[in-house]
Amino acid sequence: MITQQEYLNRIKMMQESLGAAGLDAVCIFANETEPANVRYFTGYRPVFETTAIIIPAVGEAILCVGPETERLVQQHSILKEYAKILEFRETSDPDYPDIELDSFESVFRRIGRAQALRSMGLIGTNLMTVQVYEGLIRALPEVTFSKQDMLLRKMRMIKSEAELDALRRAARIAGKGFRDALVRIRPGMTELEAAAECVYCAHRHGAEGTGFQVWTLSGDHTNQAIGIPTKKTIEPDTVFQVSMGVQVDGYVSSLGRAIVFGTCSKEIEHMFQVNLKANELTHQLITPGAKASEIATQVQELIRSEGLGSAIVYGPAHGIGMMECEYPFIESTSTFELEEHMTFAVDTFLAGQEFGMRFEDTVAVTSAGEEQYCSDLREMLVL
Amino acid sequence: MITQQEYLNRIKMMQESLGAAGLDAVCIFANETEPANVRYFTGYRPVFETTAIIIPAVGEAILCVGPETERLVQQHSILKEYAKILEFRETSDPDYPDIELDSFESVFRRIGRAQALRSMGLIGTNLMTVQVYEGLIRALPEVTFSKQDMLLRKMRMIKSEAELDALRRAARIAGKGFRDALVRIRPGMTELEAAAECVYCAHRHGAEGTGFQVWTLSGDHTNQAIGIPTKKTIEPDTVFQVSMGVQVDGYVSSLGRAIVFGTCSKEIEHMFQVNLKANELTHQLITPGAKASEIATQVQELIRSEGLGSAIVYGPAHGIGMMECEYPFIESTSTFELEEHMTFAVDTFLAGQEFGMRFEDTVAVTSAGEEQYCSDLREMLVL
Repeated sequence: MITQQEYLNRIKMMQESLGAAGLDAVCIFANETEPANVRYFTGYRPVFETTAIIIPAVGEAILCVGPETERLVQQHSILKEYAKILEFRETSDPDYPDIELDSFESVFRRIGRAQALRSMGLIGTNLMTVQVYEGLIRALPEVTFSKQDMLLRKMRMIKSEAELDALRRAARIAGKGFRDALVRIRPGMTELEAAAECVYCAHRHGAEGTGFQVWTLSGDHTNQAIGIPTKKTIEPDTVFQVSMGVQVDGYVSSLGRAIVFGTCSKEIEHMFQVNLKANELTHQLITPGAKASEIATQVQELIRSEGLGSAIVYGPAHGIGMMECEYPFIESTSTFELEEHMTFAVDTFLAGQEFGMRFEDTVAVTSAGEEQYCSDLREMLVL
Repeated sequence: MITQQEYLNRIKMMQESLGAAGLDAVCIFANETEPANVRYFTGYRPVFETTAIIIPAVGEAILCVGPETERLVQQHSILKEYAKILEFRETSDPDYPDIELDSFESVFRRIGRAQALRSMGLIGTNLMTVQVYEGLIRALPEVTFSKQDMLLRKMRMIKSEAELDALRRAARIAGKGFRDALVRIRPGMTELEAAAECVYCAHRHGAEGTGFQVWTLSGDHTNQAIGIPTKKTIEPDTVFQVSMGVQVDGYVSSLGRAIVFGTCSKEIEHMFQVNLKANELTHQLITPGAKASEIATQVQELIRSEGLGSAIVYGPAHGIGMMECEYPFIESTSTFELEEHMTFAVDTFLAGQEFGMRFEDTVAVTSAGEEQYCSDLREMLVL
């Protein structure tokens, strides 16, 4: 559980960063697919609508939501201050003749009493809608805007004990849910039916949701870096891939496992062995002070030396937390070193022409190296 | 099933609209939460990343996707032409040192061979990210941009036989799934556990997904116009609300039912009676040629005459199709008349201080009035 105090401390930390960066305020945007930016400060996440939190360097933060969300905000947000603004309405653009609304102008008048506004940072510009952006500019014609995503990424990158606890619980539920689902999934089911089993089993162990639509992919669908389960039947003697992200208290842990029902060809067995080796090497290399780029380079050299270089799509690990995939990324081009309380999804994905496979689990960087939050059935599963 | 020919016809119809509107091209944006704008033309929907389809008045349409989606596009999109552009990458902004990318500039060079570009319409600006918008402007500094959402809304508003069929199947699955789930849901379960039962039962009947996270809300959560299931226990003798949107072939049908486990107070019974009357009246009034504003006014007058005027949040029906809630809306301020092959969610929602309830079902406007796609258990359910 993230306590009210922890949410408030995060707002305070952001206010200190604003002071240091010479910003008078920041507008942090989020939507239903990626609510993390705003949920991190408030506990609130939008449904249908979008949202933003405006944090001034001095004074009270205000949550901005759409017209239909009042009671959801009152239940979920730890902030008392909120404003209902048309620009955050659901994307079908209803009119709401029966609802009284606030505006950006009124929000900035409230904020302006404690803090003059000359420079405003924007976070989540890769999510922010054009209409919200134009609304901000219209309400604040004299203000200078700048993209400041790194301010929040640097905060979210280092996890508190409560965050680590949520990720650990999410990972354990993913492991248990996967074990249960595997008993129920058989060749002849569709990918969609298998996904339903995974989701149901995860929920039975206490998941609040899934971080993304569970991927249960069979055969030539398994080489998709990003997948969608379909009505395709799960076939024997080929790869079946499960990728399930389990959410607990807003934190997502992702589990990836490849399975073969039946017999394994030489090519599949080879990819299993290389992937599991690369995965194991990544786990070994994760330790405080390690250079991210060197981890990626070493793991990719191993994969190349085993003849599967062309199957590499991206680096062997990425940040994980309120988003299943978040900053920072362990890539050959990375420029950071690992720190204690960073959390990663070790995510070794190899994609050939006919099939692919991914092993994925959540770990935390500890003083001793790493803590693995789940390692259930991380092996060559031939059933 | 939407056939390849139907997708291609939609692109052609949009090209004709562009000609009539004096536009050289249109850029239509969509994201994971609301993929409809792009799925409508291509069958493709994004996961993690965002997407757009660029349709020139003359020449080939091009699907724009993020770096990781190539194989998903090849499987799902009916268009051969696609471009991988960094601006559509997932919101955690990975670097992708190992992937070769296209750019807006190269896409517009391809399109520019068949069609000079001077004026471009934008659709989905209420979803479009600032970075995509800025990318377009940078690539086309001489081009005039204008918001043209109505061009697509008018097309999507009138459904084909294949679309009606998908909505009908989705509604029937919702009805069957709800019946099954109701046998499994009992007071003492959490809202989240009840949601898991609904989702699982819908999938068992053939759902490809849910149009939004199923809402299973109890007691004082039921007055939320937009809800999220929580760890709250379902209590007896108060309202328990199920809202489940079932997706089939990209089309979503929504079912809303209120239930009381135990005994019903006078206040709850009164709201049941008024809501079911308002719901029934809405169904009766739906017919080709009816003025939307008059339907809303008549239904709201009925609710007011029964003393529940303060519980009105919005009008009694909204468009439904690839989005659970889409244009047009039946509100007192509406200016359109109902036409054959429009589809609506009749959605009577009343929210008091202590509880609320919603009855919701999908209907199509027919020459004779309306066809109800689901009416299972639309009654005062006291169990």
